[in-house]
Amino acid sequence: MHDGSLGGVLRLIREGRALTRTDVMDVTGLSRSTVMQRLGVLLEAGLLVEQPEAGPSSGGRRPAALTFNERVGVVLAADLGAEHGRLAIYDLAGVVLAEGNAPLRIADGPDVVLEWVEQRFDELLVEAERAREDVLATAIGVPGPVEDGRPAKPPIMPGWDDYPVAERLSERFGAPALVERDVNAMALGEHRHHWPEIANLVFVKVATGIGAGIITGGELMRGNHGRAGDIGHIRASRESDELCTCGNRGCVAVLASGSAMVRQLHDAGIDVATTADVAALVRAGDPVATHHAREAGRVLGAALAAVVSVVAPSLIIVGGEMGDASEPVIAGIREGVYQQASTLATRHLRVLGTRFAERVGVVGVATLALEHVLDPANVDALLARRGIAA
Amino acid sequence: MHDGSLGGVLRLIREGRALTRTDVMDVTGLSRSTVMQRLGVLLEAGLLVEQPEAGPSSGGRRPAALTFNERVGVVLAADLGAEHGRLAIYDLAGVVLAEGNAPLRIADGPDVVLEWVEQRFDELLVEAERAREDVLATAIGVPGPVEDGRPAKPPIMPGWDDYPVAERLSERFGAPALVERDVNAMALGEHRHHWPEIANLVFVKVATGIGAGIITGGELMRGNHGRAGDIGHIRASRESDELCTCGNRGCVAVLASGSAMVRQLHDAGIDVATTADVAALVRAGDPVATHHAREAGRVLGAALAAVVSVVAPSLIIVGGEMGDASEPVIAGIREGVYQQASTLATRHLRVLGTRFAERVGVVGVATLALEHVLDPANVDALLARRGIAA
Repeated sequence: MHDGSLGGVLRLIREGRALTRTDVMDVTGLSRSTVMQRLGVLLEAGLLVEQPEAGPSSGGRRPAALTFNERVGVVLAADLGAEHGRLAIYDLAGVVLAEGNAPLRIADGPDVVLEWVEQRFDELLVEAERAREDVLATAIGVPGPVEDGRPAKPPIMPGWDDYPVAERLSERFGAPALVERDVNAMALGEHRHHWPEIANLVFVKVATGIGAGIITGGELMRGNHGRAGDIGHIRASRESDELCTCGNRGCVAVLASGSAMVRQLHDAGIDVATTADVAALVRAGDPVATHHAREAGRVLGAALAAVVSVVAPSLIIVGGEMGDASEPVIAGIREGVYQQASTLATRHLRVLGTRFAERVGVVGVATLALEHVLDPANVDALLARRGIAA
Repeated sequence: MHDGSLGGVLRLIREGRALTRTDVMDVTGLSRSTVMQRLGVLLEAGLLVEQPEAGPSSGGRRPAALTFNERVGVVLAADLGAEHGRLAIYDLAGVVLAEGNAPLRIADGPDVVLEWVEQRFDELLVEAERAREDVLATAIGVPGPVEDGRPAKPPIMPGWDDYPVAERLSERFGAPALVERDVNAMALGEHRHHWPEIANLVFVKVATGIGAGIITGGELMRGNHGRAGDIGHIRASRESDELCTCGNRGCVAVLASGSAMVRQLHDAGIDVATTADVAALVRAGDPVATHHAREAGRVLGAALAAVVSVVAPSLIIVGGEMGDASEPVIAGIREGVYQQASTLATRHLRVLGTRFAERVGVVGVATLALEHVLDPANVDALLARRGIAA
């Protein structure tokens, strides 16, 4: 029996499994009066629209077709990295209405950064000709662990620990706010858009830092205190003396991240200051930068061999400022994984670059926001936002 | 609104959330006639029993109380290791009706081993004074990956690859058969019985081989082709020349498993043939055996540090023939994990021995079988087994 709740009825129509009042009665088994009441609420809220069906009539008056109104509201999505931010507005069909990106410094702390995010969201709303009242959810990705809407001891986000990010955004825009570790959102976006048939995948972000988002059994794995996938601190080398920010030596992050490559190139006498500089050199084919990118990939691949043993994914997707830029990084990862993992673990494993390039983060958080808004369990919140009681 | 299906109604009563017909109507919102029909089917099938309520009446006739009949059927559970098997019969309250264990050799192949399992199940049924018709499910744990009820390229189970274990058992006992990697069942059993409030935990089995069962977000993580948690082939040492069965060198399994310890003690001039021999020596306080057990724990702990980075569990439970026996193994694991993992990853982490000792496997598969039988979605199968159509 189909879920006959208000949210269940909305989903039926949104997914095209019911087009008319009669369809809804047939599929749910609800009485005519209950169906009329449910549809009345959804129509009044503007979540559904009625339109006369197109095409020639086969006799009699055609019943009005019900469709989901994808323009009824928008979601705001922001992907924050260590050194950049990308923001976008989406309608409920997942269409981008406005988008922008700019450099930022996450280390400036939550007051500075969130003030900027909120102003940019307001500007994008103007650009898209939508009002704050249209905002049905906001979602924000940050480069560190998140628990209950707050960053949880994030290593590269000074000043953000336990800051009430979700509370602040939901107050400002009067709608639910979701805060997620950036790599989790990236993994979710890739899974839902490109690989829905793959139950187990790992998204690896190689940027200033290194992290992984993991989908297992089709769902995000978050772990205790939101720390699952924190692969930057897997011990990659027992010989290395390089000291990591975590206090250990030989971590993947200190050997293979963007900031590690900046240091390595600097030591080799090449003038680079940021991960972006390194990525640009690799893209331009600089041999020293290419060598270090490939070597970083190998180190990361050896650590990913352990991830493969634990998670048994059939796909590893590589993204992030360095991962994107850099076929050498991906080639190195393949080499490291296939060398270190067992034959059985890798016989069905693919390692690919992200298809979303630098947009993967914002696509991911938008996916999170849209899934939240369209979840049948959240229809009451959606109605309240439209000023209507269920 | 509560699920008003037949399975939903059964669950309401089983969980004590409804005691009478009126309760069922109140909680589900179903009409009197529908409730009478649902309860009629469940009573006829013997899944429910009616009994006059105890205690003094406060006037008027007391309505009959409905209770779930936990004696309506049984489940059969078998935990097979490389060198032993443990079997048990449970009623639907999770009470053991009969149990036994015996040495076996998984390497004898499925025909020999399953013939033995089936005979033992029949003997246990006689002992428990139950008939084959009472069997509502069977569940069997095996020491290797499983996919769709069949072992999937299991390294230490020659002859078992792709053998239709579930089909054979379900045919023999006329009830659904579940086949699961043993460590997955162990993790599930520990989680459901002792740690239901912990969302993320890892069960590590240290026996002839090494493997882990992982609970993430409260659910079992199975991975591609059932290979998640196959941590025995994480590279523990880049210096070791020991060749693993997987074809690589320096794997955890070749350095820290029971069979590795047998070889190490043998090389040290101590006469041992099996993991059980080593475990007995450690239990007896033999210093050389204790030294090797502790060192094996350290190696395993270093590999588990990577597992901790990936999964972010708050609990690691150690079991298996060596893990059980051996406080030195657990102490070594603690040392390795806390040394190699990052401070943030381990600040809420505990490492404990299993409370079920050598029964953890059979408890785990029984848990699996009971959850399957009692799942509201499977009530139709349960009724069919009792000769009644829903």
